[in-house]
Amino acid sequence: MRKSDKVIITCAITGSLHTPTMSPYLPITPQEIIDQSVEAAAAGAAILHLHARDPIDGRPSPDPDLFMQFLPQIKQRCDAVINITTGGAPGFSEDDRLAAPLRALPEMTSLNMGSMNFGVFGLADKYPEWKHPWEKPFLEASKRFAANHNFALIERIIRELGEGHGTKFEYECYDLSHLYNVAHFAERGLIKPPFLIQGIFGVLGGIGPDLENLTAMKQTADRLFGNDYYLSAFGIGRMQMRFLTLSAMLGGNVRVGLEDSLMIGRGQLAKSNAEQVAKIRTILTELGMEIATPDEARAMLALKGPDRVAF
Amino acid sequence: MRKSDKVIITCAITGSLHTPTMSPYLPITPQEIIDQSVEAAAAGAAILHLHARDPIDGRPSPDPDLFMQFLPQIKQRCDAVINITTGGAPGFSEDDRLAAPLRALPEMTSLNMGSMNFGVFGLADKYPEWKHPWEKPFLEASKRFAANHNFALIERIIRELGEGHGTKFEYECYDLSHLYNVAHFAERGLIKPPFLIQGIFGVLGGIGPDLENLTAMKQTADRLFGNDYYLSAFGIGRMQMRFLTLSAMLGGNVRVGLEDSLMIGRGQLAKSNAEQVAKIRTILTELGMEIATPDEARAMLALKGPDRVAF
Amino acid sequence: MRKSDKVIITCAITGSLHTPTMSPYLPITPQEIIDQSVEAAAAGAAILHLHARDPIDGRPSPDPDLFMQFLPQIKQRCDAVINITTGGAPGFSEDDRLAAPLRALPEMTSLNMGSMNFGVFGLADKYPEWKHPWEKPFLEASKRFAANHNFALIERIIRELGEGHGTKFEYECYDLSHLYNVAHFAERGLIKPPFLIQGIFGVLGGIGPDLENLTAMKQTADRLFGNDYYLSAFGIGRMQMRFLTLSAMLGGNVRVGLEDSLMIGRGQLAKSNAEQVAKIRTILTELGMEIATPDEARAMLALKGPDRVAF
Amino acid sequence: MRKSDKVIITCAITGSLHTPTMSPYLPITPQEIIDQSVEAAAAGAAILHLHARDPIDGRPSPDPDLFMQFLPQIKQRCDAVINITTGGAPGFSEDDRLAAPLRALPEMTSLNMGSMNFGVFGLADKYPEWKHPWEKPFLEASKRFAANHNFALIERIIRELGEGHGTKFEYECYDLSHLYNVAHFAERGLIKPPFLIQGIFGVLGGIGPDLENLTAMKQTADRLFGNDYYLSAFGIGRMQMRFLTLSAMLGGNVRVGLEDSLMIGRGQLAKSNAEQVAKIRTILTELGMEIATPDEARAMLALKGPDRVAF
Ligand SMILES: [Zn+2]
Ligand SMILES: [Zn+2]
Ligand SMILES: [Zn+2]
Ligand SMILES: [Zn+2]
Repeated sequence: MRKSDKVIITCAITGSLHTPTMSPYLPITPQEIIDQSVEAAAAGAAILHLHARDPIDGRPSPDPDLFMQFLPQIKQRCDAVINITTGGAPGFSEDDRLAAPLRALPEMTSLNMGSMNFGVFGLADKYPEWKHPWEKPFLEASKRFAANHNFALIERIIRELGEGHGTKFEYECYDLSHLYNVAHFAERGLIKPPFLIQGIFGVLGGIGPDLENLTAMKQTADRLFGNDYYLSAFGIGRMQMRFLTLSAMLGGNVRVGLEDSLMIGRGQLAKSNAEQVAKIRTILTELGMEIATPDEARAMLALKGPDRVAF
Repeated sequence: MRKSDKVIITCAITGSLHTPTMSPYLPITPQEIIDQSVEAAAAGAAILHLHARDPIDGRPSPDPDLFMQFLPQIKQRCDAVINITTGGAPGFSEDDRLAAPLRALPEMTSLNMGSMNFGVFGLADKYPEWKHPWEKPFLEASKRFAANHNFALIERIIRELGEGHGTKFEYECYDLSHLYNVAHFAERGLIKPPFLIQGIFGVLGGIGPDLENLTAMKQTADRLFGNDYYLSAFGIGRMQMRFLTLSAMLGGNVRVGLEDSLMIGRGQLAKSNAEQVAKIRTILTELGMEIATPDEARAMLALKGPDRVAF
Repeated sequence: MRKSDKVIITCAITGSLHTPTMSPYLPITPQEIIDQSVEAAAAGAAILHLHARDPIDGRPSPDPDLFMQFLPQIKQRCDAVINITTGGAPGFSEDDRLAAPLRALPEMTSLNMGSMNFGVFGLADKYPEWKHPWEKPFLEASKRFAANHNFALIERIIRELGEGHGTKFEYECYDLSHLYNVAHFAERGLIKPPFLIQGIFGVLGGIGPDLENLTAMKQTADRLFGNDYYLSAFGIGRMQMRFLTLSAMLGGNVRVGLEDSLMIGRGQLAKSNAEQVAKIRTILTELGMEIATPDEARAMLALKGPDRVAF
Repeated sequence: MRKSDKVIITCAITGSLHTPTMSPYLPITPQEIIDQSVEAAAAGAAILHLHARDPIDGRPSPDPDLFMQFLPQIKQRCDAVINITTGGAPGFSEDDRLAAPLRALPEMTSLNMGSMNFGVFGLADKYPEWKHPWEKPFLEASKRFAANHNFALIERIIRELGEGHGTKFEYECYDLSHLYNVAHFAERGLIKPPFLIQGIFGVLGGIGPDLENLTAMKQTADRLFGNDYYLSAFGIGRMQMRFLTLSAMLGGNVRVGLEDSLMIGRGQLAKSNAEQVAKIRTILTELGMEIATPDEARAMLALKGPDRVAF
């Protein structure tokens, strides 16, 4: 692992997993996404990981026009690295998933490193009433759903965005197998270090929320990539902050944000993404660590720079 | 982990991954499957893990009639436990995958514990000529393919075969996440211990063929299941025998067979399934271990017995 | 591991490793030990781990009379559990090491679980001048020194203090072998659960200050003790707070104090033991954990109670 | 870890742990040591690890004259690398331990990497009668004994034998801490790679005989030494062959011999060292591995060669 002198905080602002019923603070409209992004950057996030949502009903949307309603404004108002999802949501075609990234050509995109079950159906029973009719069926559908990130799709994303436009990837790894998939593309010469390995713990269908698993992931990545990768990690839900803390203590980086957890403490909704950024920043500072600026993150990850994006 | 006093050898006779071009010893016809199964049982296999193939071109087949051409004969000629795949192959519908098991109602079936990429496309370039036209496209298709074992399908298999007919499962775990999926169904009370956890190492798309990963899998299963599971494991291809040996040395069980590797040594095709059974038996015996009989395996795994199957 | 609902903070007030030159805040006299102990308890320490020092030159001392100059006062002024070292220092005889504990018959004592090198000679070159002439030779002597905690001595401590007087132990484990030594005495029935396993990381001669080692220690203890132990841990020096944080995040407990580190941050001496207690309390509270009171610690560890000590 | 293309088998012929009562096959006299050494080399041992014993009563002896009664003859009759213990036995002074190595100046010596308890007292109750009166008290004494391998002694051995005479070391590591001790001397520049790390599992007082511990040792060594070390390992007693097998399967090397276990199977004494060498050779060959010759071992370990020893 390449040890981080300073910790890169990525903030995943809204995602496509949570639904409007779950928290009034989940940003939905372009304006909300802009405001929470800028605020998160001010609080210390060096990278903003972004999805779009339909401004009317909050449903995840692949529409590039929607993305273009917030990307330029965020860029104007802060210097954080912008990272656009390629993960999409159930029902998105492969072309859908690539549409916004190919329009915006950002410095980074996410890249899911393997197909998997992604079981959020447990949330479907937790809310007696829903703001929008799509929410409950959307969650229930995850029971029958295999999130499809096959090798051909991964290769296409690498070729079109990476080779084609100098975009670098947040390699989303939901289990140890996904590290081997990264290694597969590295061995074929299609991707170049340093790799930002984003370990994700606690999705039903992925590796579980036991901290030992982060150690196991680091040990596996050390074997596969030696000094050629940066570690980052997060836990879903209740274990969110513990995974962040351990990742940073191991010399890695962290990701927070309402995409990954809506809470700021037990039974307490986070009022904003920035609140989560501030919380992890407090913990890391108490532990004697420093936080990377966007430009420090760019240097570490060898990004192309904000002047080479299409927004 | 529940330590095995005696090691259960499962033999996976033909599978649906390898194709006829790859080895003349791969059993294809019902008679070949019968003969190799009986021979493997005689060599020490307590469990026979079975797929069917089209007798004309060797293509994986879900046809229950085909299964019924070999199941009764194997049962007559040996007392090994019969375990039928529910994993199928690309192109099989969910009903296809359940057809033969629901006809035969065997003591055991396999149960893939999560969706995943299953990348065998690398084999498509290794053979200059093919016996059958379906083979190369079949392998290449794995590049675009996510093997779909979603939660709803797993639950259906558990309910129809397990609850419905007392069938027990070989929980095929290609990564640590799959253990958490087993735990999910155990917590919901849908499955009962002891669980036979079958760790699979070295498929592209699954956890890789480093022996450390088997230790990590055992440590994770120990956390999740305590004393409620038996471990078994195998490596795909070149590392096959090493994973078997380690699993048994850790107090677990093993799976061999031409489904998992066509070789018996470097550059040397195995002439039969029995040859692989004999090899691992030699190694385990040298290491001071004993091999479980079919009835000892039945007792360990709490199987319903061969008198309660439908063939 | 038995998960702690609330985290027990042990504070090791002065120890026998650091010397007066290293920090003006290191408590030396009985009064200093009293004041810092009471303050640490007020800050959240449930257990106070105590050594004595010669009030004139700060040298570690086994003199029970010295201990009796601070134990009663600490007991009067706070309700923390009192834990007396049996570890001693180079030059102490076995009788020396047992003298104070056998006089005071405390609720707990430390118990070093194996002989080892204990290399603090590196500190001998870090200070150009020394307050007292004994300090530098004392540190240098650790190069030729094997800290002797042989099986017979451990058994004697267990029999005289444990069986004889109901004292419970803080099992100080400087490596995985020490866990097996605990298991040895448990198998012989000489000690009873729950065990408080105190993992110590970063002494030269013991297991090193990599966080992965704490995971390895937990995994080993889980194998050996199942649910029969509580984990606690600390790092020596710079990694102190990170080990505490990880231990608590894993469901374990923590030990702080000037015995283990003189610092509160990079290049910054801690002004008191209480300052370190407060710091870890802040971190754990941010992570959503609660701190155990002395009586909660007594209940968890099944201690005999402060009314059954001899001071 | 530096992967071994071929596996180096070290054979530890007699040691100083077992006593004559325990097996009639334990070599005692110079002639017995010669014969079993030569036979072990013929069976495949590339390195012979040697202690001397008093030819009258079998007691471990540091006498260089005794060593010189077998070293030249072994050298004449086989080309195996000769490795002399520096570990000694209870009662040996530091000068005793160095006497034979400094006389013989072998290509290799052992080097115990830390002080520890070494508890063989459990054997004292297993034999109703003893051949020699020294045996039982010798074993019982291990209860009060800390094997002393302090930093100053290790440094002396490194300087006198390593720097002084080009001897390379078998770094005997009984726990993870011992790896950190090796790293300490490597950081100070006193020793040079490649290091032969010999992991020892199952001595009471050292790390225990669970195979997971070998994985943990490899992971720790990988962190500390990267590609600068060769792994070797063995288990004491019943687990001997399993540790050898795992070490080799991980890409490491092995040590057998009557020093480490007197058995060849459950309840069955090994009739010679060669019998153990042959057994592990069979297992490794079945697993597809090749065995290193003495000259291949010399090349791997960068030894000075048999022409530069003093016998
Ligand atoms: Zn996302
Ligand atoms: Zn199968
Ligand atoms: Zn202490
Ligand atoms: Zn030896």
